[in-house]
Amino acid sequence: MNKIKLGMVGGGKDAFIGDVHRMAARLDGRYELIAGALSSDANRAAESAAELGVDGKRSYNSYHEMARKEGKLKSGIDAVTIVTPNHLHADVAKEFLKAGIHVICDKPLTSNLQDAEELAKLVKDTGLVFAVTYNYSGYPMVRQAKEMVANGELGNIRVVQLEYAQDWLATNIERDGQKQAAWRTDPKQAGKGGAIGDIGTHAFHLAEFITGLEASSLLADLDAFVPGRTLDDNANILLRYKNGAKGMLWVSQVASGKENGLQIRIYGDKGGLQWAQEDPNYLHISLLGHAKKILTRAGPGTGSLANVATRIPSGHPEGFIEGFANIYRETADLIDAYREKKSITSLIPTVDDGLRGMRFIDKAVASNQAGSIWQSLDH
Amino acid sequence: MNKIKLGMVGGGKDAFIGDVHRMAARLDGRYELIAGALSSDANRAAESAAELGVDGKRSYNSYHEMARKEGKLKSGIDAVTIVTPNHLHADVAKEFLKAGIHVICDKPLTSNLQDAEELAKLVKDTGLVFAVTYNYSGYPMVRQAKEMVANGELGNIRVVQLEYAQDWLATNIERDGQKQAAWRTDPKQAGKGGAIGDIGTHAFHLAEFITGLEASSLLADLDAFVPGRTLDDNANILLRYKNGAKGMLWVSQVASGKENGLQIRIYGDKGGLQWAQEDPNYLHISLLGHAKKILTRAGPGTGSLANVATRIPSGHPEGFIEGFANIYRETADLIDAYREKKSITSLIPTVDDGLRGMRFIDKAVASNQAGSIWQSLDH
Amino acid sequence: MNKIKLGMVGGGKDAFIGDVHRMAARLDGRYELIAGALSSDANRAAESAAELGVDGKRSYNSYHEMARKEGKLKSGIDAVTIVTPNHLHADVAKEFLKAGIHVICDKPLTSNLQDAEELAKLVKDTGLVFAVTYNYSGYPMVRQAKEMVANGELGNIRVVQLEYAQDWLATNIERDGQKQAAWRTDPKQAGKGGAIGDIGTHAFHLAEFITGLEASSLLADLDAFVPGRTLDDNANILLRYKNGAKGMLWVSQVASGKENGLQIRIYGDKGGLQWAQEDPNYLHISLLGHAKKILTRAGPGTGSLANVATRIPSGHPEGFIEGFANIYRETADLIDAYREKKSITSLIPTVDDGLRGMRFIDKAVASNQAGSIWQSLDH
Amino acid sequence: MNKIKLGMVGGGKDAFIGDVHRMAARLDGRYELIAGALSSDANRAAESAAELGVDGKRSYNSYHEMARKEGKLKSGIDAVTIVTPNHLHADVAKEFLKAGIHVICDKPLTSNLQDAEELAKLVKDTGLVFAVTYNYSGYPMVRQAKEMVANGELGNIRVVQLEYAQDWLATNIERDGQKQAAWRTDPKQAGKGGAIGDIGTHAFHLAEFITGLEASSLLADLDAFVPGRTLDDNANILLRYKNGAKGMLWVSQVASGKENGLQIRIYGDKGGLQWAQEDPNYLHISLLGHAKKILTRAGPGTGSLANVATRIPSGHPEGFIEGFANIYRETADLIDAYREKKSITSLIPTVDDGLRGMRFIDKAVASNQAGSIWQSLDH
Repeated sequence: MNKIKLGMVGGGKDAFIGDVHRMAARLDGRYELIAGALSSDANRAAESAAELGVDGKRSYNSYHEMARKEGKLKSGIDAVTIVTPNHLHADVAKEFLKAGIHVICDKPLTSNLQDAEELAKLVKDTGLVFAVTYNYSGYPMVRQAKEMVANGELGNIRVVQLEYAQDWLATNIERDGQKQAAWRTDPKQAGKGGAIGDIGTHAFHLAEFITGLEASSLLADLDAFVPGRTLDDNANILLRYKNGAKGMLWVSQVASGKENGLQIRIYGDKGGLQWAQEDPNYLHISLLGHAKKILTRAGPGTGSLANVATRIPSGHPEGFIEGFANIYRETADLIDAYREKKSITSLIPTVDDGLRGMRFIDKAVASNQAGSIWQSLDH
Repeated sequence: MNKIKLGMVGGGKDAFIGDVHRMAARLDGRYELIAGALSSDANRAAESAAELGVDGKRSYNSYHEMARKEGKLKSGIDAVTIVTPNHLHADVAKEFLKAGIHVICDKPLTSNLQDAEELAKLVKDTGLVFAVTYNYSGYPMVRQAKEMVANGELGNIRVVQLEYAQDWLATNIERDGQKQAAWRTDPKQAGKGGAIGDIGTHAFHLAEFITGLEASSLLADLDAFVPGRTLDDNANILLRYKNGAKGMLWVSQVASGKENGLQIRIYGDKGGLQWAQEDPNYLHISLLGHAKKILTRAGPGTGSLANVATRIPSGHPEGFIEGFANIYRETADLIDAYREKKSITSLIPTVDDGLRGMRFIDKAVASNQAGSIWQSLDH
Repeated sequence: MNKIKLGMVGGGKDAFIGDVHRMAARLDGRYELIAGALSSDANRAAESAAELGVDGKRSYNSYHEMARKEGKLKSGIDAVTIVTPNHLHADVAKEFLKAGIHVICDKPLTSNLQDAEELAKLVKDTGLVFAVTYNYSGYPMVRQAKEMVANGELGNIRVVQLEYAQDWLATNIERDGQKQAAWRTDPKQAGKGGAIGDIGTHAFHLAEFITGLEASSLLADLDAFVPGRTLDDNANILLRYKNGAKGMLWVSQVASGKENGLQIRIYGDKGGLQWAQEDPNYLHISLLGHAKKILTRAGPGTGSLANVATRIPSGHPEGFIEGFANIYRETADLIDAYREKKSITSLIPTVDDGLRGMRFIDKAVASNQAGSIWQSLDH
Repeated sequence: MNKIKLGMVGGGKDAFIGDVHRMAARLDGRYELIAGALSSDANRAAESAAELGVDGKRSYNSYHEMARKEGKLKSGIDAVTIVTPNHLHADVAKEFLKAGIHVICDKPLTSNLQDAEELAKLVKDTGLVFAVTYNYSGYPMVRQAKEMVANGELGNIRVVQLEYAQDWLATNIERDGQKQAAWRTDPKQAGKGGAIGDIGTHAFHLAEFITGLEASSLLADLDAFVPGRTLDDNANILLRYKNGAKGMLWVSQVASGKENGLQIRIYGDKGGLQWAQEDPNYLHISLLGHAKKILTRAGPGTGSLANVATRIPSGHPEGFIEGFANIYRETADLIDAYREKKSITSLIPTVDDGLRGMRFIDKAVASNQAGSIWQSLDH
């Protein structure tokens, strides 16, 4: 199968997340980056393209132009990666979808719920591949957790304990011109959600991904602890799942010492599990009446979902990029299947997962505004 | 100073917590156990007394008789330890207080809020020493945490993350005659609270003890997951503190793999800390902009509050009994001061702390019944 | 059974190890301390006795006098604890044994091999109880390890990895008058071995205790890194066991950050285990082809050797004092059996274990002096 | 700068280490793989080439042919990666060097010391870039350790504790046709060293890399525990460094539960450090008299050596591939500098490091054969 021709919108040099997407795309040799609208600043776009080996002719100053032209080129891009601030996701995605180009979109899906709903509809109308990079679902031991829950090893799930805590926004760095912070704390670019959108959506997705449960309602107490900030930087959220399980979700970007502290713990009537993103090669299992176990990536006792998502032997740690690259590799499988008009199953987060994340944000804000009242997540 | 003459109500043989209190009392040689109403079963009471070296004449069949007689004996007991099920605490305590005997009472203080209020009043009227064994506040590294927060090392506290999770009630062992489980899951003996009373009160106290903050309100979502159980075995609670800090508290006795998982994490605008009861000799500190630190009990960087509460050098782990024994040792200091008519400062949990725990239980139940509504903790 | 009447030689106030022995003796209420020659300084001896509630008449200025008088008293002590510097162990022990008094002796057994051999002979001649406080063998999870090896769960043992590292002698604190350091670094008081005697003997014993294997030979490379020190403060030792297993033992008192880092790892042809003294409630098990397991004290999967040595439920950490107290409790069982002329099995380290430790020291020094040559441990 | 044109000898499909080299080469987009002699089996070579997108014309059946032809092609490869069994390294490397092609060679350098010496001479004669993939030196926190030692933060180094333990050869899998095991346990393909060559050389190099110290002599006790095996699968080694520091090195491939357990601990007169390959994003630092610290990759307190070797923010774990890719990236820098006739400093392991590793193997075998006698590493 030929390599997938990839374009990128956003992600000019020094943009952390652009680099991550590119490394993830390169790792398995399934993509080649050949076009981009890498920055809204023309000079920066050109420089970034040159650095990345993108032909100057395929470096665009606007995503509109890029979508239009690449859609018509005989050897135009097959897929585009969208790594702009949130408020642009919807429009960029629509333009490329309309040009017949598959989309890999960073999260949260959009900056508001209505955009997300429209986009989800468009994706279905086009039938194109659309992946949302809830990348943490790409980690092998997260897949292992999913498989064990599905196999009933934990029994009926009762309790879900979620947290995603960081500390990089513990002070007002957005005022000091830190670009990553600036747009994430700006409602115009980020949308209604601060931390809940930037990282909370990851955790919310992860719990549904692993447990296969659907959350029915939530209740939220949001804060913007850092003076001058308007969007939430800490959120205390209660969750209820449709099977009767109960959850807690702590989201924070002001928790000193927490670097990228995404953690999930799940307890059923037969056993429990624990996984932490910062030590991703381990999965802690505790079955009632048995000694605790630690499963290691590619080690004894792991199943097929984990093993197809792993590249190297146990004890040789895989990290964030490898997990992210699984999203890219499996999206490549979907695109190849599309080309061959085949249907394959996939664990890739879809536009519906993205839409569900937007509803999570919307309802958390609504609950908080109403004084921490339960809000349905069904509609 | 002579040893303190101690009596015990409850805690007959095979009662876990009776043994703990006795070991805690023995460790430093400050007490001698000389009297007891160790069981409501007369034979068992006598056997337990014999095993413990308590003179048969000082082994009573009822606490009423014991309080009456010991209060009149010339060399009667100075203090009594109460380790019965909750619903007896208030009455036992009152009888001994009225007999002029100091009280060391297990938690929760009573089985209902009204009893607790009356008891608190009586304690103040008598002026006797009354200690509630929120024993986790006796751990040296908990004291270290308290000292660091008080010194402003974490700055203004914003976030409190609490959990106390166990798994021993994950199945219906109360039906199988497990005695410890039976009374703790019986509203008549335990009161309104299940897990929130048995262990939630510890966590609630610990947070106020360490931070020096007062919680203003809470919101609760309680469950009894195990079929046939009426009292909560899992509780998801949000907290608000008077300084504006926000908290979460997860309490569970159905979390498979959690043995005695009490953990506290606190984040201020300068730094954070983490302490876990199962690894009590470590305190994790993370100041903004600095590498994470691990303080060890009796190791470099610990302060006086921790060091006076430690017995052996760093690297030689102290455990649960030693922490518990600190409550006994410091209560002995208070009793000695009482004898000498001196006033000393103390970190020992008081009847007011016990009363506050009862309010925590009461309000958590009320919040849950009202559909998870904020409840004030002020009155 | 009546309490055992205990005396102590050495261990005056501020002596770390005296306190430890006393707390260990008190914890289970099996002993009462009623006599002592607590210090070679008469004032200090008297003060210490008073603080400990020892009757002034039973506070002696010399252990000679104490042994002589207590041996003749109708209610004289049953047993004596020896916590002096090493060079006095042999003489003190002999005097009390000759007076018909059981002995609990700190390690290393003596300050030279000849004394040890003579003492071992005397112990056998008297038939009295003689315990050497290789206290680490008292930890419940060490017992669990022993049971699992004996049950063949690890298969034939191939590899033993031992280390005991501390940092308290990383600088020349003996010159600054630190008393504990002064005698331990003085050949006249400590004997030939520095770190190898003070802590290396513990590790050497632990490996034989857990594995049931006998070491056949050793090879050593010793250093005194701190300027001015004559006894070893770091030792790199290779070991060979009679079954063909091979071992390494690192002993250090100059390893910055190591507080009391005793660790043992054992690998057989079926599996491996790991235990670390600073986190003593965990035992790590890895059987070939299976996920790693963590056994917890009193938790699922533990056997009878561990469970009889544990006092409180899982998750409630036991520590150094509880492990030490197991030596005292089981020595009390031996003394009670002696009184009743019964024979019981015991895991208590004997004078032969103490003698073996002395041979370990002697051979390590000999190997080092000969340029790191294998030395037999058989004779 | 244009991408470096890369060839590969060995590493056909299903060869673990070939995949690793390719992912490492791809991650940063600095290389393109365009030629290969990927297998000695012609069909397998062709299939592997096709899978990897290597043009059939550039897929060779012999490395002789490949070196000859590529050396003459106008757009022939710039560099070759050698990932064959050890016994071929020397001949392959020589042919490509003679063809003017830079070499990236897996470790150990060759299968015997003489080959290594000749190869080292040839490399110097040609002046070409020659990298040995002691890949663990590419981890950012290993670089951090090196920088801290160089800055004197640990003081004068006294103690080096090394271990590299695995369990994959704990049973006789080489008899069952496991290909990776078969050649590594075969003296004809592997050379004199088993575990000491396959993994011991990594640890030996790492210690010299981090400390900047040179080992002067070693003493070894080697075993082949698995019946039927001739090369060592467990090695207990003592080390002496030229500054007076002492070391221990445990190498094992039969340690059940050890997956890829490379660990280094270093202690100087001011402080100590610890790093473990399986958790590579952490570096543990303990300075005398200070609380322990944990530095995290890209976190507070890291220096420039680490930071230039890191790709993503702290808390987003990097792993084995990223560390390996640092070797590729920095080799690319060297090749670019060669093209531009510039001189740059580099941390890349050289042919001299590879030669030193061969001497380590040779001397360890010699010491063991002589009954564990010190052997000089100088010549």
